[in-house]
Amino acid sequence: MLFPTGHRGAATPAPVVPSTGRLQPLGLDQVRITGGPWARRQEVNAAATLAHIEHWLEREGWLGNFDLAAAGGPAAGRRGREFSDSEVYKLLEAMAWELGRRPDADLEHRFGAMVRRVAAAQEPDGYLGTRFGRPGQEPRYTDLEWGHELYCQGHLYQAAAARARTGRPGDLLVEVARRSADHVCATFGPDGNQGICGHAEVEVGLAELGRALGEPRYLAQAALFLDRRGHGVLADIEFGRSYYQDDVPVRDAEVFHGHAVRANYLAAGAVDVAVETGDEKLLDAVAGQWARTQARRTYLTGGQGSHHQDEAFGDDWVLPPDRAYSETCASVGSVMVSWRLLLARGGAQYADAIERALTNVVATSPAHDGRSFFYANTLHQRVPAEHVATDEVSKRAEASLRAPWFEVACCPPNVARTFASVAAYVATVDDGGVQLHQYAPAEIRATLPSGEQVALDVVTGYPDDGRVEVHVVDAPSGDWTLTLRVPSWSPSARVRVDDGSDRVVGPGFVEVPGPRSGAVVTLDLDAAPRFVVPDPHIDAVRGCVAVQRGPQVLCLESVDLDEGDGVDDVVVDASVPPWEVDGTVYVRAGILGASDGGWPYAATDDAAPRPRPELRDVPLVAYHDWANRGPATMRVWLPAL
Amino acid sequence: MLFPTGHRGAATPAPVVPSTGRLQPLGLDQVRITGGPWARRQEVNAAATLAHIEHWLEREGWLGNFDLAAAGGPAAGRRGREFSDSEVYKLLEAMAWELGRRPDADLEHRFGAMVRRVAAAQEPDGYLGTRFGRPGQEPRYTDLEWGHELYCQGHLYQAAAARARTGRPGDLLVEVARRSADHVCATFGPDGNQGICGHAEVEVGLAELGRALGEPRYLAQAALFLDRRGHGVLADIEFGRSYYQDDVPVRDAEVFHGHAVRANYLAAGAVDVAVETGDEKLLDAVAGQWARTQARRTYLTGGQGSHHQDEAFGDDWVLPPDRAYSETCASVGSVMVSWRLLLARGGAQYADAIERALTNVVATSPAHDGRSFFYANTLHQRVPAEHVATDEVSKRAEASLRAPWFEVACCPPNVARTFASVAAYVATVDDGGVQLHQYAPAEIRATLPSGEQVALDVVTGYPDDGRVEVHVVDAPSGDWTLTLRVPSWSPSARVRVDDGSDRVVGPGFVEVPGPRSGAVVTLDLDAAPRFVVPDPHIDAVRGCVAVQRGPQVLCLESVDLDEGDGVDDVVVDASVPPWEVDGTVYVRAGILGASDGGWPYAATDDAAPRPRPELRDVPLVAYHDWANRGPATMRVWLPAL
Repeated sequence: MLFPTGHRGAATPAPVVPSTGRLQPLGLDQVRITGGPWARRQEVNAAATLAHIEHWLEREGWLGNFDLAAAGGPAAGRRGREFSDSEVYKLLEAMAWELGRRPDADLEHRFGAMVRRVAAAQEPDGYLGTRFGRPGQEPRYTDLEWGHELYCQGHLYQAAAARARTGRPGDLLVEVARRSADHVCATFGPDGNQGICGHAEVEVGLAELGRALGEPRYLAQAALFLDRRGHGVLADIEFGRSYYQDDVPVRDAEVFHGHAVRANYLAAGAVDVAVETGDEKLLDAVAGQWARTQARRTYLTGGQGSHHQDEAFGDDWVLPPDRAYSETCASVGSVMVSWRLLLARGGAQYADAIERALTNVVATSPAHDGRSFFYANTLHQRVPAEHVATDEVSKRAEASLRAPWFEVACCPPNVARTFASVAAYVATVDDGGVQLHQYAPAEIRATLPSGEQVALDVVTGYPDDGRVEVHVVDAPSGDWTLTLRVPSWSPSARVRVDDGSDRVVGPGFVEVPGPRSGAVVTLDLDAAPRFVVPDPHIDAVRGCVAVQRGPQVLCLESVDLDEGDGVDDVVVDASVPPWEVDGTVYVRAGILGASDGGWPYAATDDAAPRPRPELRDVPLVAYHDWANRGPATMRVWLPAL
Repeated sequence: MLFPTGHRGAATPAPVVPSTGRLQPLGLDQVRITGGPWARRQEVNAAATLAHIEHWLEREGWLGNFDLAAAGGPAAGRRGREFSDSEVYKLLEAMAWELGRRPDADLEHRFGAMVRRVAAAQEPDGYLGTRFGRPGQEPRYTDLEWGHELYCQGHLYQAAAARARTGRPGDLLVEVARRSADHVCATFGPDGNQGICGHAEVEVGLAELGRALGEPRYLAQAALFLDRRGHGVLADIEFGRSYYQDDVPVRDAEVFHGHAVRANYLAAGAVDVAVETGDEKLLDAVAGQWARTQARRTYLTGGQGSHHQDEAFGDDWVLPPDRAYSETCASVGSVMVSWRLLLARGGAQYADAIERALTNVVATSPAHDGRSFFYANTLHQRVPAEHVATDEVSKRAEASLRAPWFEVACCPPNVARTFASVAAYVATVDDGGVQLHQYAPAEIRATLPSGEQVALDVVTGYPDDGRVEVHVVDAPSGDWTLTLRVPSWSPSARVRVDDGSDRVVGPGFVEVPGPRSGAVVTLDLDAAPRFVVPDPHIDAVRGCVAVQRGPQVLCLESVDLDEGDGVDDVVVDASVPPWEVDGTVYVRAGILGASDGGWPYAATDDAAPRPRPELRDVPLVAYHDWANRGPATMRVWLPAL
């Protein structure tokens, strides 16, 4: 069943608005983050990051590529990689969400000017792309493996959906996207080109544009792309067809595999198609893959992908911290998948995963000033970062200091669009009431499916503080339920309502029956720092502990050690739990003696026991804060004495 | 000082013949391996591998490229990668050594025919290469970063040195190489092109050809290339200039770094230059880098390189077994470096390293039939290999089953040339006598620098058996010393001479003063299987043990477990030492319960202790024998209970 009439909420200003599902999203007009780290990140994003990205797109000529294409002449002078158009579209999406969050005349003006440059490059038949089809370029769609033409147009659709839903349904960007999508449907339809794109994205883009514009053809085309993939449609390549998930149909796969960004984007599109077509088997398949991927192929930070070579998932349990690729965009993609599964099925594990990835990967990427970024997010930096100049493009994705821009610059605008729309992940509604998934100081002004209004104010010092107060400003008139997530990192929690109810609950969703207007619901989570240990199958961190405080993974940075001591020599006394003083978490740790410099493998009877090192109190920092104090080494997993 | 007059042994049929140094090599005419695993490998190499490689070079058109170039027409039709010429030269080198080891009319005929095809492609000015400079190709030396033109010609020189030293100093191949080397000296000399090759090799090739032909200009050119590198001569690339060691001059580096094959080839050339010019500081530098690389960047197998992306060394201590790249060619290169250092300085650690890399990496590459090869040599295979058809080129270097051929096919001919010349690594001589470095049934008929003859027969069941008998067939007339290496894996050894002397000694070189003709010297090494443990800085194998028996690293292969059990679930009881029954080594091991399928990181207080698994006797196999019984999973490092 494609788009049943009367589908709900198509105009909700949120990135994902399914026509059906267990939970309904709220738009940026219904949830506003008013303080705390996420509000600060949104401010920096608006004040610095958007303009920073625009500057680099201009400087590197990726915006100019549209002007060249519009001029219609030969392709000489086009700059950047084959997918550079997509960075423009992701910036447009970020701007659209930011404008939806808070009007800004200057930003609106820059947005409009950029859209006009994009629109001028669109071909009469709707095709949009600066890399193929002009004089001096290969013809369109002649390199589906690596050309990224459909990928780029998919990002255009997500941007247009954002624009349509933030109050501009007839906007030029929306019309450009509509013409492009019509062209794609005409070209790749049931009787057309039977190809797919080497990088999934057009599926999720078509689905969302179809939802936003009420156009079932777009969703049908997304379903068609999805069904084609996995049958060896694309060429075999050095990394194998698994790289772009063309080795096995998405409904038959057991786990996310291949290129981690591609895998997550594909899975997100598969959930969209499954939800809209009522395909429960497909939804089961993706949910099963998600669970296995979380259990066996995900870092403690929520990061995914341990292969640098092909930016890919490793086999089960291959999670070396010092070779973590954990691309920022893979975690943006994992949030896309988890959020869609949460809307489709409910399930606190999805909200847990979103919190983990947002807090520890997506928020780790940008520097505090929002003007440089990690592309890869290692969990163990063994060599102090080289200096990355603030005005140079980084060739190396795994630069150990954040870089202002990359030859492959997917991550900065992906962070920007996620931050600008992050309020959308805070809460949902269903027939019974409101569900709070992520905690931040916030104002929630939601309309329930019944039409009744709910107004909640969230007051909290989260995540440093585990207390969350929900002030019920306006309750619905009848029975309703306030559902709160107790994160999996909190072994237990206490829920009190000021009418006297008081319970201790475990992780998962806890339901608070119909608090009245004026009531205050207090959730006390256990955010004390604690050691975590890995499943023994994760060979690379055997014998280590990590420290987590609430949702935040902590790490040890060499700037907090004595001069000359390195994180590679640290061992911790795991019998002394981590403790907190004035907001800083400490562990008891020592420095191992240096290696003797000989062959590093010894027969057990020859291996001299090492003297127990002298122990001291060593401070940790939040992983998302690391590398903001200059070049340093760092590790998340700490060897236990 | 370049090539002092009267340099010794230039015509010795061995791969490396320095004009000076602590020890002197023996040629293939002086050492013959008569039995045991190395004799079997040489037989398979001669009977199967050489023809196998020749077949694939023909089939893939890499030999045909020379015919095309000789025809002088446009370049259309050239096949293979930019370095495909080098595989032809490495095969020629392997054939030359094989012909030096044992004359064979058919092989001689094939060799000559191939050389004529190569020679026909040489340009009048001596340039030789099929990839550049013809109509339709880029001009010569316009892509020093990736073009591999000097690299290819370097392999030509090593092949020619082999030919010159095995009795054909005026052979066509030798003259072709001489003309090419003259061209290189004219083009890249002090006043010429100031470039270097992106892949070191021409240095070691020029040095050896210079030694073989008594031509100091070639060595001077090698020294020039060496001095130029490290100053940013080549372009910065995605992997950084460290990839091709152009980031720091070789005499200033602290450790081998970047691409592992390039690093080793460069170091080998640096030793050659240092020895011939008497540059002790350069020799110290390389020896220091070698030691640090062995201590911090080498796998238990002797394999090197943990980065798949750039085939490179990782940072210190980055040695994940499941992401070991450990390219076969990197170990061939490491043998080249260790051997040169052994000749220059003596030192049993160099012979230890040669034995380790030959036994556990180079010998692991080919299948028992010599017709398929590992390119990368992982220490932990988590997923059973895909089937690799016997008649398909493998795109994927890390194919988990051996493949008959690769798009980048450097490893098969590198194995072939090493096997054909492996007898050269068995023994050396010096003014005092004979040094035995590697043990195999062998006949040694050496001439000492004094001119006296020594004849030794080695009788042994090594490496399965630790007893080595050296039968002194003919002793020199005066005082002399027989030096035996006690490998570092043998905690102690007993040396007896049948005149009654009997000593217990530790690892290193042990000297046996002047045994008479007819004497038998018996060395009893402790080849019992034993657990080895890693330096605690090697995070990836913390808490694991491996089993070594003599020089052989052992591994657990899933075909030796019960149906359904996987190596990822195995734990061993490290309190029970490994034991041997009828030639098979066993450990006490159990199978861990499966993971519960949830988030794999738990707070320490939540982590339920796992029940101790039931233990059983599990057999191990030699790592170099693995993957000869069909698709399997495998691991070298075994988690301790």
